[in-house]
Amino acid sequence: MNLTLEEKAALCLGSTFWHTAPIDRLGIPAIMVSDGPHGLRRQPDGNQAGITGALPATCFPTASALGSSWDPDLVRRIGAAIGAEARALSVAVVLGPGVNIKRSPLCGRNFEYFSEDPLLTGVLGEAHVTGVQSQGVGACVKHFAANNQETDRLRVSADVDERTLREIYLPHFERIVTRAKPWMVMSAYNLVNGVPAAEHRWLLTDVLRDEWAYDGVVVSDWGAVRDRVAALVAGLDLEMPPKLGISDAAIVAAVRDGRLDEKVLDQTVERILRLIDRAPDPDGPFDVDAHHALARAAAADCAVLLKNDRDLLPLRPAPGDTIAVIGASPRFQGAGSSQVNPTRVDDLITELRARTTVEFAAGGDQAIDLAARAATVVVLMGLPAGDETEGADRRHMDLPAEQITLLARIAQVNDNVVVVLANGSAVEVASWQQHAGAILETWLSGQAVGGAIADLLLGTVNPSGRLAETLPVRLADNPSYLNFPGEAGHVRYGEGVFVGYRAYDAVDRAVAYPFGHGLSYTTFAYHDLAVTVAGDSSVLVTCTVVNTGARHGKEVVQLYVGPPASPVARPVRELKAFAKLDLPPGAGETVTFQLDPRDLAYWSTRHQRWLVQGGAYEIAVGASSRDLRLTTTAEVPGDMVTEPLTAVSTLREWLADPAGAAALRAAVGESQGIFADPESQIVLGDFPLTALTAFPGLGLSDPVLAHAVRLSKEV
Amino acid sequence: MNLTLEEKAALCLGSTFWHTAPIDRLGIPAIMVSDGPHGLRRQPDGNQAGITGALPATCFPTASALGSSWDPDLVRRIGAAIGAEARALSVAVVLGPGVNIKRSPLCGRNFEYFSEDPLLTGVLGEAHVTGVQSQGVGACVKHFAANNQETDRLRVSADVDERTLREIYLPHFERIVTRAKPWMVMSAYNLVNGVPAAEHRWLLTDVLRDEWAYDGVVVSDWGAVRDRVAALVAGLDLEMPPKLGISDAAIVAAVRDGRLDEKVLDQTVERILRLIDRAPDPDGPFDVDAHHALARAAAADCAVLLKNDRDLLPLRPAPGDTIAVIGASPRFQGAGSSQVNPTRVDDLITELRARTTVEFAAGGDQAIDLAARAATVVVLMGLPAGDETEGADRRHMDLPAEQITLLARIAQVNDNVVVVLANGSAVEVASWQQHAGAILETWLSGQAVGGAIADLLLGTVNPSGRLAETLPVRLADNPSYLNFPGEAGHVRYGEGVFVGYRAYDAVDRAVAYPFGHGLSYTTFAYHDLAVTVAGDSSVLVTCTVVNTGARHGKEVVQLYVGPPASPVARPVRELKAFAKLDLPPGAGETVTFQLDPRDLAYWSTRHQRWLVQGGAYEIAVGASSRDLRLTTTAEVPGDMVTEPLTAVSTLREWLADPAGAAALRAAVGESQGIFADPESQIVLGDFPLTALTAFPGLGLSDPVLAHAVRLSKEV
Repeated sequence: MNLTLEEKAALCLGSTFWHTAPIDRLGIPAIMVSDGPHGLRRQPDGNQAGITGALPATCFPTASALGSSWDPDLVRRIGAAIGAEARALSVAVVLGPGVNIKRSPLCGRNFEYFSEDPLLTGVLGEAHVTGVQSQGVGACVKHFAANNQETDRLRVSADVDERTLREIYLPHFERIVTRAKPWMVMSAYNLVNGVPAAEHRWLLTDVLRDEWAYDGVVVSDWGAVRDRVAALVAGLDLEMPPKLGISDAAIVAAVRDGRLDEKVLDQTVERILRLIDRAPDPDGPFDVDAHHALARAAAADCAVLLKNDRDLLPLRPAPGDTIAVIGASPRFQGAGSSQVNPTRVDDLITELRARTTVEFAAGGDQAIDLAARAATVVVLMGLPAGDETEGADRRHMDLPAEQITLLARIAQVNDNVVVVLANGSAVEVASWQQHAGAILETWLSGQAVGGAIADLLLGTVNPSGRLAETLPVRLADNPSYLNFPGEAGHVRYGEGVFVGYRAYDAVDRAVAYPFGHGLSYTTFAYHDLAVTVAGDSSVLVTCTVVNTGARHGKEVVQLYVGPPASPVARPVRELKAFAKLDLPPGAGETVTFQLDPRDLAYWSTRHQRWLVQGGAYEIAVGASSRDLRLTTTAEVPGDMVTEPLTAVSTLREWLADPAGAAALRAAVGESQGIFADPESQIVLGDFPLTALTAFPGLGLSDPVLAHAVRLSKEV
Repeated sequence: MNLTLEEKAALCLGSTFWHTAPIDRLGIPAIMVSDGPHGLRRQPDGNQAGITGALPATCFPTASALGSSWDPDLVRRIGAAIGAEARALSVAVVLGPGVNIKRSPLCGRNFEYFSEDPLLTGVLGEAHVTGVQSQGVGACVKHFAANNQETDRLRVSADVDERTLREIYLPHFERIVTRAKPWMVMSAYNLVNGVPAAEHRWLLTDVLRDEWAYDGVVVSDWGAVRDRVAALVAGLDLEMPPKLGISDAAIVAAVRDGRLDEKVLDQTVERILRLIDRAPDPDGPFDVDAHHALARAAAADCAVLLKNDRDLLPLRPAPGDTIAVIGASPRFQGAGSSQVNPTRVDDLITELRARTTVEFAAGGDQAIDLAARAATVVVLMGLPAGDETEGADRRHMDLPAEQITLLARIAQVNDNVVVVLANGSAVEVASWQQHAGAILETWLSGQAVGGAIADLLLGTVNPSGRLAETLPVRLADNPSYLNFPGEAGHVRYGEGVFVGYRAYDAVDRAVAYPFGHGLSYTTFAYHDLAVTVAGDSSVLVTCTVVNTGARHGKEVVQLYVGPPASPVARPVRELKAFAKLDLPPGAGETVTFQLDPRDLAYWSTRHQRWLVQGGAYEIAVGASSRDLRLTTTAEVPGDMVTEPLTAVSTLREWLADPAGAAALRAAVGESQGIFADPESQIVLGDFPLTALTAFPGLGLSDPVLAHAVRLSKEV
């Protein structure tokens, strides 16, 4: 295409807050993007920066809730619905899903993210993108990468080592990019190891494009670009919102004075034109009712039944029984750029009243009176809206004290207390849960959550959500606690790969509810775990799960793998596969999990590759990370990586290698020098041999070392 | 002095394993150095690399024990005794004290280090150096810096941020260097943030010489020099042991071809000549008996009485009572370069038998029979020798299982069980301590520990040691647990400043015994805590301590300071002063502690200086870090550090500053743009203003920002 330099530069930024740049001369249209991880936020005025006033759209469960569904098919269907709404509203790319890892419970945007685990995040993120893009609309996976807090979010550097990036903060991006091929990837606001994510060549080019073969568009998070030319060179295609007349001029000037190779610009332009070319024609209006119904079914499948003493749930009101509902209506989304203007909102009380006898009180003494005479009390608890917003992290993870006080008073007058929680990020439960016989965590579950809660409480739907993040006993137990949100412009990822359950398990710390936990109104039995190991270190795992209760229900079968001793510190076990089964009473299903070598591997920074440690792997299936029902062992050959011994290898390394030990012994002389003094071998074990050449009496002169190295190579 | 280039180069390395280079032409002698943190290890053959066979010298308590004395005067006297022995054995510089911080209980060389706390380490290290050098002999403080493990000790990089270095891993070096002026500082084996300590210009020159005004000699740890010229340029004076003919030739070549400025070499030579010039004439033989008596008194003052239920101790055998002693003789030093060939060794059984009726059994059924008929059982427990050696870290912190099994069996047949521990680094006690009525921790306390234990058990001496390191409930509770000993050549100091009690307190973790803990046979009361704050933020603290029991005893009064909320994450409280009081029954003493502003400060990496946060400081005195007896508050003015608002300051920073908020409001217009939308102010709060210039509707164009900056400066 015959673009001028100025036209090329113009394409590298938007034309408005939400549109790419049109080139009228060549009939290149502007396409529109909109916020929308859990529903579209399409501003009526295409150039509006504010949060409110979007066109109505279905508010689906937020990612915090969808993460707990453990159901990629559900997430894919929601993605498809969002895609359809986007197309109906002339939006070409939806700015979601958000897939950052929940490093700390305090991250203000956790409600927009799926999980503390990269596999679960990756599977659900892939499903979301696939769903959206099935409608001919683009998805934009964000925020790439290591964007795990709101505090100082445009200036803070996430200081994180490469192995931790590779194993925790990148694998889900890799999965989504390579499998679902999102049209867009959004770079993060923050810096990574001192370099702004928008200018991070290693992230945007070396890893994303060269390793993962990404051919879509990288867009900046809104306002993140500092140096437009540096960002372009690093691999950032589209600046949003545009600094019109500034960023385009900078690109032109950089090409003109030779600082920027025009071929780099051409590649970016090619990617942007391809994106514009993919933009769909607008479609008809979307099906508001069908999408609302999907939102309701989804919300029900996301809720996690944390506890259910004496089978308090489902409610089985006898004739004449009153169910008391006390508290405020459950919140269903968070604040910030993801805030949807819902098409409608289900009201819990209305939904319950349609099916049983309900009395309601917001709080106060009236509420205690009501509780005292009700058969069962449903207490609605959760975080205040101000605690969950883009732009601010929480300072603690406690529910408001007045809610807990009210609950305690209610528990004094009624034994049948059910707590329904609404919060987009983890809350502390250990200090008050004794007051509740049952706890149903709904997260922030979208506009139809009122109906979904009624369905769950009354047993129309059997709960099947599982925790996508650990609920620790106390915030201070969280592995990032001492390093969140950082200081002086840096946040040290001091816990390394030990994020979430990986940490709690590594230090054997008691938790309130473990990762993967969630109860059902029925029960499941696990049988016949079997493993088959192939020569390439892949492992086939099968097991059978049976619904042993009296109700239809869904079980999330979770496969955890524990590695053998390795050269690096590794989690006790990690989630490597899962499946959500839908089983009628008495029915069973055999699940098959195929583990690739990569599923067993760790990232070796030294070798710059994934390495499978040979040895015995623990293969465990269960209903949570701490409810492992069946465990077996897989003997895996692993990768053979031997490093040649050199003069800077340590004495210990030489002695540990049979050929090396023989060579060294031959070079030094049997029972001579270092071989005459076993105690010195311990004290000097970690010395590179070269560091010992000046030690008299050890027989390790430079010529002797050279001889030993030669001998070791002959063996 | 008229040295040739070759002679200068020769002076930059030793001539033997233990000697500097003589220059015979000019009558410059070789001087000898020897190992010796807790006693001299003077090899008879001056060029011997082996560990054993040293000339006899007094083996004093190791630093693990002396740390628990909390008694700088005692440590100074021991230093003086070691200095006298050095002089008697023609040693010019003693290679000690070792002052590295106990980051993990697993460090194999912890027995050579004082504490997990830099203040306690610094005070005792200063006393040691002062004592040694009072004899005209040099001390060599080591290992500089961040040498906190043995694993891969010559290749591992301690990756640690500057604030953590400044607050935890350097302050004791600073104190010792600036106050006691050691003749030598030994650089560490390891790398610090990727740079070998022996070549670390920032450590050896910028900090040590330029900031701390150090004018002595920096010597390499033995075998640590990789690149002699790079080390010289960085500030390392003396290479030991010498790579004769290699390192000197490299220096000559570097000067000749202009890579090395000869002025740098001249400075090093000047420092080395000054050191040689300071070497004393040999002195007569040392007083073996007097030094042994000092070693015994010291060992008694180092032991920590961890528990003493029902006042089991001191032993008060009735006529006819038998005391059973079961187990192996207490170890009294560790293995490696610090291993002393003692002048004599006290035997515990012999010492006890001289004063009461004792029967002994090493173990087995015989021991149970003995325990069953004894009035009291003293069980000797501790780590095996192989667990504590230079060159190897431990993998766990457990006592041998067979010792615990034996103890449990003994506890079944006798209610009066006293455990005496001998171990140079922390051991797990929580799982077995219920079997012991009393526990006396002796650490590794030198050749006279047998007599000292007898003195303590029988009440001749009242225990006065206090823990210099926390005993956690479990190893996994230690803050470095997930990051020790690192991998792939790096160890991440992920816990930052939260080392030892600073971490346990920050996460409010239960411990077995807290930092500073130790019981006495008498009791102490604390009264009249008072603080006076000066305008320069210094604080004068006074309190009175009274011996309220019936025995003479020593109390360690500990002053902890808790900071107000600060821009960086800080420990709940930190030890800032202490005093060991010697009080007859009924006597009291008023202690005065002078806190300088530096004692309240944190290191601001941003400002590259110490900063005192203004606000209310908790001032607490007590008998341990978790036994605070009196607490008050000091309102401290602190340092005023304001940073001018700029266009890259965040919206939140502008709004938090009254003048800035007014300026921005005036520039944008009252209730206009960003001021029209409070919700956006939260979401956008952490945006630098420059990142918002392309956001329509906020009124934050570049000209508006420039105006706001101008206005803010006018106010």
